[in-house]
Amino acid sequence: MIIVNGSAAETIPVMDRGLMYGDGVFRTMRVEHGQVDSWQRQYQKLAADCAALDILCPAQSTLEHDIHEAVTSEPDCVLKIIVSRGEGGRGYGLPSSVHPSRVIVTAPLPEYPARYWEEGVRLHVCEIRMCHQPRLAGIKHLNRLENVLARAEWHDPEVHEGLLCDDTEAVVSGVSSNLFIVRSGGLLTPELGRCGVAGVARGRILRAARAQGMGIEVTRITPAMLLDDEAVMLCNAVQGVRRVARLEDTTWPANGWADRLDAWLNEVD
Amino acid sequence: MIIVNGSAAETIPVMDRGLMYGDGVFRTMRVEHGQVDSWQRQYQKLAADCAALDILCPAQSTLEHDIHEAVTSEPDCVLKIIVSRGEGGRGYGLPSSVHPSRVIVTAPLPEYPARYWEEGVRLHVCEIRMCHQPRLAGIKHLNRLENVLARAEWHDPEVHEGLLCDDTEAVVSGVSSNLFIVRSGGLLTPELGRCGVAGVARGRILRAARAQGMGIEVTRITPAMLLDDEAVMLCNAVQGVRRVARLEDTTWPANGWADRLDAWLNEVD
Repeated sequence: MIIVNGSAAETIPVMDRGLMYGDGVFRTMRVEHGQVDSWQRQYQKLAADCAALDILCPAQSTLEHDIHEAVTSEPDCVLKIIVSRGEGGRGYGLPSSVHPSRVIVTAPLPEYPARYWEEGVRLHVCEIRMCHQPRLAGIKHLNRLENVLARAEWHDPEVHEGLLCDDTEAVVSGVSSNLFIVRSGGLLTPELGRCGVAGVARGRILRAARAQGMGIEVTRITPAMLLDDEAVMLCNAVQGVRRVARLEDTTWPANGWADRLDAWLNEVD
Repeated sequence: MIIVNGSAAETIPVMDRGLMYGDGVFRTMRVEHGQVDSWQRQYQKLAADCAALDILCPAQSTLEHDIHEAVTSEPDCVLKIIVSRGEGGRGYGLPSSVHPSRVIVTAPLPEYPARYWEEGVRLHVCEIRMCHQPRLAGIKHLNRLENVLARAEWHDPEVHEGLLCDDTEAVVSGVSSNLFIVRSGGLLTPELGRCGVAGVARGRILRAARAQGMGIEVTRITPAMLLDDEAVMLCNAVQGVRRVARLEDTTWPANGWADRLDAWLNEVD
């Protein structure tokens, strides 16, 4: 189901700046039994991303009304919210008055093979390098061509996710996930001040690990570092935590870390 | 007027990847007496940009048919063509079969004050730095948040355009134009292998200058270099060539170069 500005619809105006320039942000969330997982955090992140681009974020209650409309007939789904700056302006310049557009899209929960969890997943090291744009870093905006090109790099269905690096050979994330590693009992994840998306699941895992008394480092991680680590894991709001089992010739055995983080993810807001 | 996939329409499907990810390209052109200025070059560039992103470009005759529909009632206008990859796919991944969407939008020719040409234009030096993404450099794709943020930096109506630099302090372009300078009788323009859009007007000016026997350098240009130059000019397909008269405290007198380049632009294809 699709809800556009509060009403069921399949289309948006051509002149929406979301299409014209990718001038907007989005979130992808898991809905079970009609409840959006970690909704408060998702809304906070949506509002923060809008603020970073000076887009007026719709009120939480407005979006909750839209979401209720969308999930009533589909209580278990993936829910995507897009907020664009709206229509108008001449060229890149903003109109003096602009009303943001909000779009809610539901899709069936993806069915991944159970072995992704049992056996872990395989990573492809993407050739594309993510560019450094501090003004956009961390934000889940609609300018996602880098991710599209990265995802187009492999066709092997055995490969589940791509590893994104920047041009300093620092690891950024997966194509549609954040990355964690365990080293000497501490949890490390890439610093995202220059590129990448700081997802809600990433924030929850960091808070949970801190609450568990685990050492945390948000730092520079290189692909070579991964090879020595105890565990490499991916997370996002739809799939939770997945264990990386293989990256090129390197394999990691299951050692409980991914299950632990996935449990933590479900314990914290 | 708006034509979507051959028919008059005001909207596109929400699920179009142009909205979801900025997964598409566009062109902006000048139409006079029902004729698109430099149409062959515009189509070649559209096709090249589509190819760079592995998007199937609509046939030239198909677009010509759409354009004819759009400009019949509006023979003098600005024409924008958007080609997106189309609908579908799960997340960033491409669907096995995808049909590109084509959108034609007309708008009135902009009316700029005559003094922009008589007196030259003022430039703002943008604070945002364009990121280096060689895979997208030169392409006029729909991921244009950097340009939106750059254009939002100034509100003074006396400032006509913003100067974009990258994080090595090299000049890239204007926010919606390419840049040329004249130095020792030669024509220089920034190299665009890492960021920026290589516009059709830029290509025409380079060909015209070469035909005139003028020395050409496509090279690294810094803002400091501009201050010493004989002439600084901006060009795009809608506005032609404009002379920069002022950048912060530096001013340039009219010396005929902008008029010369504008005339050349109209002489070559």
